Amino acid sequence: MLARILAVGDELLLGRTVDTNSSHIARWLTDRGFHVDRTVVVGDPQRDIEAALHAVSDGAALVIITGGLGPTDDDRTRQALAAVMEVALTERSAAWARIRRWYRTNLPTRPIPEINRRQALAPVGADLLANDRGTAPGLTTRIARCRVACMPGVPHEMMAMLNRLDRPLIRWFPRLRRPVIGEVWISGIGESAAQELIGGLLTEQHPQVGITVSEKGHITLRVVGTAKEVRARTRALRHALTPYLLPAAGPAASLVTLLSKDGRTIAAAESCTCGQVVAQLGAVAGASAVLRESLVAYHEGVKRSRLGVPPSLLRRHGVVSEAVAAAMAMGMRRHAGADLAIATTGIAGPGGGTAATPVGTVCVAVADRSGVATKTIRVRGSRERVQVRAAAQALVMAFEVASGRLTTKPIELI
Amino acid sequence: MLARILAVGDELLLGRTVDTNSSHIARWLTDRGFHVDRTVVVGDPQRDIEAALHAVSDGAALVIITGGLGPTDDDRTRQALAAVMEVALTERSAAWARIRRWYRTNLPTRPIPEINRRQALAPVGADLLANDRGTAPGLTTRIARCRVACMPGVPHEMMAMLNRLDRPLIRWFPRLRRPVIGEVWISGIGESAAQELIGGLLTEQHPQVGITVSEKGHITLRVVGTAKEVRARTRALRHALTPYLLPAAGPAASLVTLLSKDGRTIAAAESCTCGQVVAQLGAVAGASAVLRESLVAYHEGVKRSRLGVPPSLLRRHGVVSEAVAAAMAMGMRRHAGADLAIATTGIAGPGGGTAATPVGTVCVAVADRSGVATKTIRVRGSRERVQVRAAAQALVMAFEVASGRLTTKPIELI
Repeated sequence: MLARILAVGDELLLGRTVDTNSSHIARWLTDRGFHVDRTVVVGDPQRDIEAALHAVSDGAALVIITGGLGPTDDDRTRQALAAVMEVALTERSAAWARIRRWYRTNLPTRPIPEINRRQALAPVGADLLANDRGTAPGLTTRIARCRVACMPGVPHEMMAMLNRLDRPLIRWFPRLRRPVIGEVWISGIGESAAQELIGGLLTEQHPQVGITVSEKGHITLRVVGTAKEVRARTRALRHALTPYLLPAAGPAASLVTLLSKDGRTIAAAESCTCGQVVAQLGAVAGASAVLRESLVAYHEGVKRSRLGVPPSLLRRHGVVSEAVAAAMAMGMRRHAGADLAIATTGIAGPGGGTAATPVGTVCVAVADRSGVATKTIRVRGSRERVQVRAAAQALVMAFEVASGRLTTKPIELI
Repeated sequence: MLARILAVGDELLLGRTVDTNSSHIARWLTDRGFHVDRTVVVGDPQRDIEAALHAVSDGAALVIITGGLGPTDDDRTRQALAAVMEVALTERSAAWARIRRWYRTNLPTRPIPEINRRQALAPVGADLLANDRGTAPGLTTRIARCRVACMPGVPHEMMAMLNRLDRPLIRWFPRLRRPVIGEVWISGIGESAAQELIGGLLTEQHPQVGITVSEKGHITLRVVGTAKEVRARTRALRHALTPYLLPAAGPAASLVTLLSKDGRTIAAAESCTCGQVVAQLGAVAGASAVLRESLVAYHEGVKRSRLGVPPSLLRRHGVVSEAVAAAMAMGMRRHAGADLAIATTGIAGPGGGTAATPVGTVCVAVADRSGVATKTIRVRGSRERVQVRAAAQALVMAFEVASGRLTTKPIELI
């Protein structure tokens, strides 16, 4: 079952907005048994949408379109669809009633703009998909033998609407089967080293095993096949990769999973990562059960007063040092009364680097009741990349300490 | 000058990886005067890459390809390019020498894998682009009259290599002119309300004015045209939107810009946003100059002990209340010795909502020396979306207080 995605919008081609919709839709389709072989992004001009619609619908079982359903003149997806289907656009009274209802509920003090009436237009023969989050209804229809579903470009509206497609999907593709998917998550090892360890277990068919490296640094192995194939291959992968396994997708989720099990708590004291450690942790549902407290301590004064980092230590080792990271982690653990504490100190850039301590140098420490573990990492790239990856690395290290893979040692701060 | 982008990689079509490269390249091309009318993503199969290459090179002046240059069997961009050019692939000794040098410098303890030798292959007639960040060299060549540049898929390698393209670009397109671009940033107003205020100032030609809404909530108006057109239109837009103007791209950057000017400092005490406020602030270069300290205070005990939120207040109003947000902001301002403090408390979800306080309800407060301002917002969508948008809204509010647009009032906490 071949599916394709068409995203519409000038803002995507100006590079001002990252197209996250296509990725979300691709995952949704893949999880339901479709094979996605192409995604296309075009701008607002109607002729570009029409040309792309002809191309992507040719040979596909399903096309999902996102964007171009807004109320303004430059939103032309409805028109392009009608032109390719060679039918007229007509106003649907049910859609217009729903739009007015949306305004009365969500913006009761504002008059309903007449311009939104355009959003009630649909090609003859198309069915409407209700929008629970905004004014533009979606559409389902077909171009020749290809099924087409058309959704707004606003991500959270699109995501909510996508789930309304499950029911028609069963009707359109009764033989579609959700594939069995197994995932194995690892960290603390690079992609090529992992490939060497698993050798022949990466296969393109029966089961299909793919490898994806997250921008945050962990690796996902994804197994697709029959239930039996997936079970056996997942077991073999877990066996080959035992020292690197994570219990959940990514270090933050793994840490929350692990600590929740035995009611342990964690705290963080961040300097250069500036909230990325706690933000990655806090993005996991259930983080509130394990996160005691977290501090961003950019300034030396804050490191001294809240965390008790001795001024002599700062002078002797410099603020970007494993000794200071260790003192911050131990101080934060005490300060917060947590079982574990993470600390980071480094140079996120773009300025502030030196020959000895270039931008991207980050010292990480994790403290538990037995002591502290430290390391220094180096991340290349933008300030944002340094912060995001260093935070993920710190969380990996905390997971390693919490799971007993990495042992902490008592140290004396001098 | 028409340009197109082709991104290659199964992981993009499985929806496991968001294609950020195309967006980055699109922005880079647009800023240099190209018009991008299409972006295509295909998977690893060579026939799919070949078909896409034929399609995107047809009628374009320039195509940028990203991905499929890795050392493994399933990396077929080089092969597809040679096939479309109808030339052979040959090993370039300079490229192989550079790959070996990269290994010796970056992974000195590891033997150089013979498999990487494939990355030294290039179609006859193609030029190499050096990779400063990894092993795969890039390529420049042409398909018929269309210039083609081919880059790795790893984002930070691609970004670094893109800048090596500036020089050949001048040679290939001597008449290419960088457009003059003006940007106006606003917040505190929705897209359609902003459109009503600026009416005829949104034009598709001479100058071209586009509107983009960030996922974080602020709006960017982008003016492209001659220097004179851009100056005049930008001034008109700023005039029409005065009460909503931001001095930089987004609330965090605006706040850092504004506070840096007169040496004021800020602190944050976050509950449900769990580090998003400080992470957004910390992502701005120069944030260290204004950010005093920041605390994630999930637990009531932390709210009481660090911020001095009275237990009676928590009991009377509930933890998700403007009164508690106000107490947190005032407590944090005092605790950190900062000029301003932001506080958030709410329900990020997915669990924990009630009929009275549904998931997505967030109370925000900003304190300064004169008192505190509070509001309650409601964000729909995932936990991540609630955290990201609520944090951005809190930063907008802090900007409004810091710039004097919003007045704080002394309150008594009972």
